[in-house]
Amino acid sequence: MALEQMIRDMGQQARQASLQMASLTSEAKNQMLQEMARLLDSSRDEIAAANAKDLEAAAARNLEGSKLDRLKLTPKRIDDLIAGLHDVAALPDPVGEVTKMWMRPNGLQVGRVRIPLGVIGIIYESRPNVTVEAAALCIKAGNAVILRGGSEAFHSNSFLTQLLQQAMASASLPVHGVQLVETTDREAVKILLEQEDTIDVMIPRGGETLIRFVAENARMPVLKHYKGVCHVYVDSEADLNMATEISVNAKAQRPGVCNAMETLLVHADVAETFLPQAAKALQEAGVSLRGCERTVKILSCEPATEDDWYEEYLNLTLAVRVVDSMDDAIAHIHKYGSQHTEAIVTESYKKAQDFLRRVLSSLVLVNASTRFNDGFQLGLGAEIGISTSRLHAFGAMGLEELTTTKFIAYGQGQIRT
Amino acid sequence: MALEQMIRDMGQQARQASLQMASLTSEAKNQMLQEMARLLDSSRDEIAAANAKDLEAAAARNLEGSKLDRLKLTPKRIDDLIAGLHDVAALPDPVGEVTKMWMRPNGLQVGRVRIPLGVIGIIYESRPNVTVEAAALCIKAGNAVILRGGSEAFHSNSFLTQLLQQAMASASLPVHGVQLVETTDREAVKILLEQEDTIDVMIPRGGETLIRFVAENARMPVLKHYKGVCHVYVDSEADLNMATEISVNAKAQRPGVCNAMETLLVHADVAETFLPQAAKALQEAGVSLRGCERTVKILSCEPATEDDWYEEYLNLTLAVRVVDSMDDAIAHIHKYGSQHTEAIVTESYKKAQDFLRRVLSSLVLVNASTRFNDGFQLGLGAEIGISTSRLHAFGAMGLEELTTTKFIAYGQGQIRT
Repeated sequence: MALEQMIRDMGQQARQASLQMASLTSEAKNQMLQEMARLLDSSRDEIAAANAKDLEAAAARNLEGSKLDRLKLTPKRIDDLIAGLHDVAALPDPVGEVTKMWMRPNGLQVGRVRIPLGVIGIIYESRPNVTVEAAALCIKAGNAVILRGGSEAFHSNSFLTQLLQQAMASASLPVHGVQLVETTDREAVKILLEQEDTIDVMIPRGGETLIRFVAENARMPVLKHYKGVCHVYVDSEADLNMATEISVNAKAQRPGVCNAMETLLVHADVAETFLPQAAKALQEAGVSLRGCERTVKILSCEPATEDDWYEEYLNLTLAVRVVDSMDDAIAHIHKYGSQHTEAIVTESYKKAQDFLRRVLSSLVLVNASTRFNDGFQLGLGAEIGISTSRLHAFGAMGLEELTTTKFIAYGQGQIRT
Repeated sequence: MALEQMIRDMGQQARQASLQMASLTSEAKNQMLQEMARLLDSSRDEIAAANAKDLEAAAARNLEGSKLDRLKLTPKRIDDLIAGLHDVAALPDPVGEVTKMWMRPNGLQVGRVRIPLGVIGIIYESRPNVTVEAAALCIKAGNAVILRGGSEAFHSNSFLTQLLQQAMASASLPVHGVQLVETTDREAVKILLEQEDTIDVMIPRGGETLIRFVAENARMPVLKHYKGVCHVYVDSEADLNMATEISVNAKAQRPGVCNAMETLLVHADVAETFLPQAAKALQEAGVSLRGCERTVKILSCEPATEDDWYEEYLNLTLAVRVVDSMDDAIAHIHKYGSQHTEAIVTESYKKAQDFLRRVLSSLVLVNASTRFNDGFQLGLGAEIGISTSRLHAFGAMGLEELTTTKFIAYGQGQIRT
C-alpha cells in the first residue's frame, strides 16, 4: 500500500509539473539541458562511485559480458551524454508550432498547435545512459517524465536523477518534472502501469519480454516495438554489385540491432549470378547462411526451416530465400515480417514505385541499406525509439513524436446555429 | 472455442483485406461508397423490415424513449446516410499524401507518406446508422473494419453489413474489408479486444461504461473519449453581451452532447453585472443553475456542491462559479475539467493568447461557443469521434486520424558507415 501511494503521488506530482512545463520557453528548457551537461562534467567522480556500486553488485551476481558492459558509465560514455545534451538543446523546439491554420465560412479561424504529450513513463533495462538521454528528450518536448530503470543500475540511475533534478531546479523548472521510481520491488512496475489518470503514455525500452509485459499490463497507451525482422529484396533488375554492398551493410555493419537485415530475398532470374557473389562477401564479413531449398542448390549452406523466416537473429546469421517475383517477395514480407524496415534493390522505376507503395513497413527503402532506420540517420535529430505499432507514431520517433496537437480557434462571437 | 476461432478468423481475413485496401485508388473506394448509397436507396423496404424486427424486440423488452428512438432507421435517416456517403466520397483521399520530404547529406531522399492504419475495430451501441457511417470513413481512409454493434440493433446491423459487402464486391474491393461480429454473445467483445495481432486500433462509441470496459480490456491501442466537462470563462474584460450569447449557445443549443458547456466561470469584477443578465437569458432557454457561494449571493439559485464541478450533466443544468482571476479559472479547468473544450470570452489580447497557450484541452477557443468542437464544424469534413487522450489524435478525428505515416527513402546505393 505504501508503494502504491508513493507511485500514485509521483503521478500526481508529474501531472502538476507537466502543466507548468507545457508553457515553458525553449530558452528555459535549453538552460536545464546545458546545466545538466555541466553537472555531468563536474560530477564524474561521484558518477563513477555510484556506478562502481552497481558493477560490484553485478559481478557478485555473475552478470555476463554484454549486460555488464551496458551497465558501465565509462568516461567516454559520459562525454557522449554531455555531447548529446548539447545536441538536444540545439534542436528546434516542437512545442508551439502551428502545423496548420484555416478559416471557416463563419469567420472562425481554426488551427492545430503542437503541445507536449504531458507525462511520459519510461521503463528500461540495464543501460543507465537512458536515464539522461530519455529525460532530455522528454523535457525538451515539454513533458514531465517518470523513469523506471533496471534494478542492476539502481545506484547509477539514482545519482543521475539527482543531477537531473538539480539541473531542473537551477533552471527554475519544476523538479517533479523528472522522477525516478526508486525501488527494486518489481511490483512497482505493475502499479506504474495502472496510473492511466496521470501518465499519458508509456515507452518501454528493452527486450521483447519487458515490452510484452508492459503492453499487456499498461492501462495507458504504449509506444513500442517488438522486433525487427528486416528484409532486403534483390530484384531481377538489380545492380548486383550495389545489391551485394547493401546486403553486407544491412547484415553485418552492426548485426545486433533491430534495423539489421534478417532475411535476404532474391529474384530467381538473378539467383545463380547474385548468390555466389553475395555469399562470398557475406562470408568474408563473418555471416553464416541458412538457405531455402533453391538456395542450397546454388550455395553450400545450412538449410533454413520455416522458423528461420520468423527469426530475429540479432547476430551474424542470415536466412536466404529465392522468390519467383516481386509479388512473392512482398507476400513473404507480409507473412513473416515485423513491419519494421524493408529495402528493394532494383533499377526498375515501376518496381521501385510499386514496392514503396505496397510494402507497409515503418521504413521502405529503394537502393539503400535497412540500417538507415534510425532517428539520427533519417534526419529527425534525435531518437526515443522505433515504433512498429501504427498508432501515433510508426517508425523512428524523434521530438515531434513526443508531442500531440490541440485545436485552437480565434472567434469574434461565433455561436452555432 | 468456436466463437474464439470465428473472431480470430475474422481478424485474419480483415488483415488480408487491409493489405489490398491500402493500395486502392481513390476512384475504387469512391465507387464503393456511391454503390452503397444506391443500395441503401433501392433497399428501403428491406431495411425497414429488418429494423422493424429490432423495434419489436425492443418494445417487448420495454426499451425506453431515447434508446428506442436512436434505434429507428426512419426514411429521413436513410436519406442522411445516403447524403453522408456522397459527402465522404467527395472528400480528398488522405492516403498517399507525402506530408514531408527532405534530403540527407548522403543524398538519401527521405519522406513521410500517409498510409491507412490497417484494421480498425468499432464497438458501438444502439444507433445502427453507425454501421454505415463508420464503415464509410474507415474504407475511404483505406482501412479494413470489423464492426460490433449493440445487440438491440442486431437485425438492422446485419442487413446493412450485407449491403456494405455487396457494395465492396461490386466495386471489386475485398468483401472482408467490412465485417460484422454477428452474435449477441457478450463474450465476443472480450475476444475481439484480444486480437492485437490483427486489429490495429479499437474505437468504442457509446456511453462511459462501454468505453471504460474497452479501455480496460483492449490489448490494442484505443481511441476514446470519456466525457466532456466543458467550460466557458467570462473574463473581466469580456464583451458581456457576447459572453451571454456564447453561454446560452454553449449550454442550451444542444445540451445532451459532449461539447456542451457544463460549468460557467465568471471573473469577480464582472460577476454582479454579468450574472443577472446571463441568468435571465439562460433561464429563458430553460437552464437551471447551481452556483458557488458567491454566485448564490448574486442570484437566487441552488447551491453547487464539490461534485457539481466534476459533473457532465448532459442536460439543462449548469454549474456557475465566480473566480478571482484567469489563473484561478485555469486552475479550476485543470482540476475539474476533462481536457475536452474550453472557451474564454475576453477583449484582452494578452489574456486571449495566454488562455490559448496554457489551457491544454483538445479545443481551446477565444470568443466562440464550445459547440464548435466537432469534425464538421472545424472543417475536417467528417468525424469518427473525439479523442480526449493525447496519443495519436487529440480532439475531433476525421479521415486523416484514420491514417498513419510511414517513412520512405529513395537511395542510389547508400550504405551506413
